[in-house]
Parts: sequence; structure tokens; C-alpha cells
Amino acid sequence: MVASISSPALLDLAQNARQAALHLGTLSTADRNQAIAAIADGLTAATPEIIAANQADCDAAQAEGIATPLYNRLKLGESKLHATIAGVRDVQNLADPLGQISLHRQLDQDLVLKRVACPLGVLGVIFEARPEALIQITSLAIKSGNAVILKGGKEATRSCQVLTQVIQKALAQTAVNPQAINLLTTREEIRGLLALDHYIDLIIPRGSNEFVQYIQQNTHIPVLGHADGICHLYLDHQADLTTAITVTVDAKTQYPAACNAIETLLVHEAIAPQFLPPIAQALREKGVSLRGDAATQALINCDPADETDWRTEYSDLILSIKIVPSLQTAINHINTYGSKHTDGIITEDPQAAEQFFAQVDAAGVYHNCSTRFADGFRYGFGAEVGISTQKMPPRGPVGLEGLVTYKYQLRGSGQIVATYSGENAKPFLHQDL
Amino acid sequence: MVASISSPALLDLAQNARQAALHLGTLSTADRNQAIAAIADGLTAATPEIIAANQADCDAAQAEGIATPLYNRLKLGESKLHATIAGVRDVQNLADPLGQISLHRQLDQDLVLKRVACPLGVLGVIFEARPEALIQITSLAIKSGNAVILKGGKEATRSCQVLTQVIQKALAQTAVNPQAINLLTTREEIRGLLALDHYIDLIIPRGSNEFVQYIQQNTHIPVLGHADGICHLYLDHQADLTTAITVTVDAKTQYPAACNAIETLLVHEAIAPQFLPPIAQALREKGVSLRGDAATQALINCDPADETDWRTEYSDLILSIKIVPSLQTAINHINTYGSKHTDGIITEDPQAAEQFFAQVDAAGVYHNCSTRFADGFRYGFGAEVGISTQKMPPRGPVGLEGLVTYKYQLRGSGQIVATYSGENAKPFLHQDL
Repeated sequence: MVASISSPALLDLAQNARQAALHLGTLSTADRNQAIAAIADGLTAATPEIIAANQADCDAAQAEGIATPLYNRLKLGESKLHATIAGVRDVQNLADPLGQISLHRQLDQDLVLKRVACPLGVLGVIFEARPEALIQITSLAIKSGNAVILKGGKEATRSCQVLTQVIQKALAQTAVNPQAINLLTTREEIRGLLALDHYIDLIIPRGSNEFVQYIQQNTHIPVLGHADGICHLYLDHQADLTTAITVTVDAKTQYPAACNAIETLLVHEAIAPQFLPPIAQALREKGVSLRGDAATQALINCDPADETDWRTEYSDLILSIKIVPSLQTAINHINTYGSKHTDGIITEDPQAAEQFFAQVDAAGVYHNCSTRFADGFRYGFGAEVGISTQKMPPRGPVGLEGLVTYKYQLRGSGQIVATYSGENAKPFLHQDL
Repeated sequence: MVASISSPALLDLAQNARQAALHLGTLSTADRNQAIAAIADGLTAATPEIIAANQADCDAAQAEGIATPLYNRLKLGESKLHATIAGVRDVQNLADPLGQISLHRQLDQDLVLKRVACPLGVLGVIFEARPEALIQITSLAIKSGNAVILKGGKEATRSCQVLTQVIQKALAQTAVNPQAINLLTTREEIRGLLALDHYIDLIIPRGSNEFVQYIQQNTHIPVLGHADGICHLYLDHQADLTTAITVTVDAKTQYPAACNAIETLLVHEAIAPQFLPPIAQALREKGVSLRGDAATQALINCDPADETDWRTEYSDLILSIKIVPSLQTAINHINTYGSKHTDGIITEDPQAAEQFFAQVDAAGVYHNCSTRFADGFRYGFGAEVGISTQKMPPRGPVGLEGLVTYKYQLRGSGQIVATYSGENAKPFLHQDL
């Protein structure tokens, strides 16, 4: 496919996706769930074909010298595929995000307003070379009544092509138009996708911070995603030592590459001499390299940290440490250098926690627990679409509700605005039902 | 003030606004309401000063030959000022949008998640030369705990300067930092404002479609607003004639410059011969010029309409008319040419209305009533920030809830994620409280 911003083929694909979305959005819960079940069945039946295509991707990537972590992501063995198919059946069992009524109000006699959840329309999802992501995204899209245009990492092209064919074939037996699911395979098509303001309602980019930032800066379509995860833990002078140690270790080391792992530990000066040595020891036992400001270096053995460190998401077993004279200084540091993702305080003082909650400007503010809880599954959302660090909702971990919007439905019996305007205006009832 | 994208003065102002916002966001309902009352009192006391500054603006604009409708908007007579001050006191009485809990869930014993409404931070509001808008926006900003950077139309500069001084002086006696309210006075500063991604959380542009489009295309800050209001009314073959006539006349003529007035009337071919002549007559009596497709021209006397008309927001007493063979054709026309604002159907057939509601992709879908009801006051939102035609929430008329977001607060007692991971993972409770 020749791809440029005005590629007719891409425009055609987007228009067809839009048409398919309009129809998909009107289907019943049962119809959408049946389509999801058909996808799970189709994938199960096509397992050998999928595994073979993925093996070809893996062989080609290995011949080009792919790094081991990327290879592990690319590799879709039988057990990973089966676990992903089980996830598809879980999505089938989630509550329907469509049709929920968030406002029901009588404006006047026989003039009734409802705000009803409905699909966004067409999603553009750009993801890393991880084939099972295509399956997860597709099932979430159908559940939420949205069509989707997918672009996976290039190393996974053969896997994605086979998966898309299998899914489209499965959908052909259901009420969902197979054109609701679309695959792009070239990098050039991404720019074209980003220019389709009139056809794409939401872009979900997954991958490196640089990549997400690139997307955000090159489209006027709303983007769900976050470029940075610079999370903090602040140990207040009223912190419990055991809690401080266990939470710090978990928040840094349980999965350091995650966006909700901490990058900077802020420690109140009153407890630093007592707390830092055992914390440093516990972290070193987990292989963490420490960097500290001058005051920290005076208490423990560590490399120096400067302002660059406060702005860095290491995504690795590295932690920067800063000693602060007060809760307010800690809050100011977080609001200056943080990425509004998730920040925690360890303290036995409820008032300090409340001040932290009120003043820290982040999607998640945590008291006496690990920042690693910032996750859609852990929040009980069933499925996670992404984590948003924008200020406007949806903010924080986003489940299916991030893929729906709403319409105002107004049902009347001939009412006109002239009746409610001017000198003898009839008053509205505005009574919630 | 020298203004460019990197203007240090503008950056300073934005940083101060951000600091003021952080403090404002932590104030109690009573403190914010008291500040709003102080503004109302201050404005009342300063009435002569405000009227004088506004008169100077009006004289200067008249000397430059301002058009009458713009002059009427610019003019802030004593009665308009008093009505606006009464509006400020109304805002004081609205429910507090902050602190509302939209999710309250026990993840596990002593690990409780809450989603709590909080302010956005700093708003950038660019509005037309209508001084009372500054007063309305300021009171809504304080109510919702947000700082605001205002830029009014240049003809209203003197009025806006005096109003800002009066408001800042009133705030100095309250818990709200006067630096929460800021005024820009030059057009160059708008570009600088649009570049302040890190300081401004939401831009609200008010004014012409072209202006709103310019803003949307020149910033990566979220924008609340809509560029177009191309609304439709579809007269189904099961429509009641009286309802069709009265609603069409209201939706077109009650306030033709409003974004929720209709631009195109779609008429089912089965009723067109009977319906169009009386509707055309009723519209002509209100001074409406009619433009029709070939089929319409065969039934009534009107100018020809072509595809350009279907894409045009006249904002005037002009209506384009198209005869369609079916409900589905009407829906397709709306989804092709509409602006996703508000579209209505007139029919006695509930199934036709349901199909229209499900398939028309718009913030408002209306049955047997005028599109002119699409308005925050009429919806009972108390105050309207704007109308959004984006797909993502907030969509449609936006009240105070469009100026707030939320934080996830997680309160624990030392919990770490390692406990809930791996082979012997502890299950979550996920129990709503």
C-alpha cells in the first residue's frame, strides 16, 4: 500500500472502518459478546497457523540480532497464546460499558434528558512488536463498540497479519462487520493515520516514552497515553521504618521497567540518618544502584545525583535519593519534577497524608502503600487500555470506560425554546429521575 | 509586556498562577464561596469606575466604526453589570464540583481506593470583546478551584483591566491568592499562552469558528470548544405536521446566530409535498431565505442548494433543505456533513427515533423538540462553560464539571505489590464501598 498523508487506500480503509463502527455501535451486548467468543474460538482453531507465522517473525528477528527482551516480547508460544485467548473470554464476561445512563432528568413535562454511554467510533492503536497486544486490543474494541485500526511493531508483521486474518474470518460469521478490524503494516502509514482527524476518534500509542511523545506532538486526534512515569515516594518524619523499607523496595524493584515504579526517594531530614542506611542496604541486596544529593552522600555510600536525575525515568534498578527539610519541600519537588503519574507518602501522621493528597498534582496519590498498585487490573477495572497522565479525564489507569463517550438524548413532545425564553418564560422543572 | 513564545514575563505569570492554583485547590467550599461573594461586593462597589472604563472602550470602538452587534456586546451598561453580578452570586450557590467521590473501592483489607474530583489547575480563557464574560469566567474558575489566565477582545481592554483590578483587590481580602486571576492584553501573548503546555491545563476559546479552529490547530493543550455548529432537523414520513412546523421554525429562527440553530432541514420524500409548502411559508414569515435541492425546488419557491450548503453554518436566517428517500439516507447525510453538535428527528414512530438516536453521531440527539435546547442552562447545569463537539467527554454542553478532573487516592497500611503477584499471589477483594 502506498502510504502518505493523503493515501487514498488509507482513506478508504478509514471510511470503511467508520461505517463498520457505526453499525457495531448499534449492536446488542449479546451480539458483541458473541463476536468476542467467535474470535476466541477462531484463534484456538488457528493455533498452528499463528504459531508458525510468529516463528517466522522470530527467526527473521533473530537473524537480524534482536535483543533478548524484545525477542521475548515478540515470541508468541502456545502457552502465551492460550493465556491471551483466555483473556479474550474474560473480556466477554466484563460488564457492558455501553448504554449506561449517567444522567436522567426531566426538563419539563414530557421533555426528558438522558446522558447515555456510547462508543467513541474508530480507535487507532499503535503498539510494540508484541502480537498478543493485537488480540487484547481487538477484544476490548469490540466490547466497547469501536472499530480499530492497528499498527504493530514491524518485527511482528507476519504474526499480526495472520491474527488479523483469523479474527476477520471469525467475525464474518457474526453480526460484527470484519472491516471493524484493520491492520496497517508500514511505518509510513502511521503519519497518514495521525492526519485522519475526521475518521479516527482516539489514538492509543504504546511503546517508549519518545514514541508516545512523538505521537502526541504530531496529531490533533486525542491521544490516550503517557510519555513519562517519574514517580516518587516520600518518607515523612513520622514514617514507620518497616513500612518505609518494604514499600520502597517494592516500589523500586518489583518491576523496575514499569511506569509506576519510583525513580526518586524523598526523605525527611529528621529520619534520614536512621532510615537511609537500612533502606540502602535492602535496595542494594536487590541490585539497585543509588544516587544521592550531598546530604544523602554524607549518610550512605552512593553516586552523586543532580537535577538531571530528578527529571529522569530510569526504568531500571537505579534510584535517586534527596533529603528534604519538610513535607512542603517534598510536595514542591514532586510538583516540579514529577510526571503527574503516581506519588506516595509513608507516614503515621494522617494530617501529613491529607496535605500530600491535596497538594500533590498527580493521577494517583498514595499513603502507606506501593506506587506499583497504579494499574487497571489492580484497581479492579477488569482490563486496562492504558495509563493516562493528562489532567483531563480519563486520568490514571483507564479501563473500558476510556473507550466510550456519551450522547445526550432529549425526548420531547413538540417543545420549542421560545416557550422557555423572554418575558413570560416558562420555568424548567429540572427534576432528576 | 514583550510577548513571544519564550516571554519571561508570561512564564513568570503562568508560574505564579500555577502556585496560586495549587493553594486555591486546597481551600474549603466556604473559603471559595466567600471569595466569590467578595468579588460580587467589590464589583458592586466599583460600579462607577467599571462603567467609566467601559464607556471609554465604547467611545474608542465607535470612533473606529465598530459594527452595531459588536458594540452591543462590548457595552456594559449598569443593568447588564448588575445582572452579571447577580450571576456571580448564583455561582456561589451552585453545588461544589470539588471533592465528589465517583469510585470508592476496597482493594483489600485496609487498602482503599477513592476517585475524588479535584481542580484542573490553570485555565487559559480567550474570549470576545464582552466584558461580562470576564466576570462569569472568574467566578466559575474560583468555584472549581482553578486559576485563570484571561485574554479578552482588544476593544474591551480598558474594561477588562479595571474588572481584573477590582477582582484582585476583592480577593486580597479573602483566602484566595489574587494571582489566581490574570489578564493578558496583547494578541501576541495568545501564541505564548498556547505554547505553555506545562503550565496551562485547559484552553477555552470563545468567538468565531475560525478563531476556535485556529486555537485547536496551534496548541497541544486540551481545548474545550467547538469550531462548528451544523445542526440538522429530519422530518420523518411519520412526522406530525404541527410539530414539524413549530419545531423547524423555533430551531431556525429563535436565535439563528446560536450554534444549536439548524442549518439544514432533511425531509422524507413521502411527506415533502404536503409538509414543505406550509413550513416554507412559516419560515418566510420569520424572514428566512430558503435554499433547496432539485426536488425541493420542484415543490417550493427557493434558491438552489448544492454540496457547499450542506457544509455551511449560516449562523443567519438561511436554511438549506434536502429531500431524502429514507431515514437511513438522512442519518448518512448528518454523519457526513454534520458537526456532531445536535441533530433532531420529528416522528411519531418510536422505532425511527431509536434508530436515529443509535446511529447519529452527535453530542445531542433529539426527538420531537427543538435543537435550541442544547445548552447548559436548559440542561440544568447551572452555569455553562461551553459546548464541546469533540467525541471524548466532556461532550455537549459543559457545566462546572468540565473544569474539574479527579485523582485516585489509595490509602494502605504497608501493602506492597509483591504480595499480589506471582505464583502465590493474594487475590484482591475489589469490593465497592
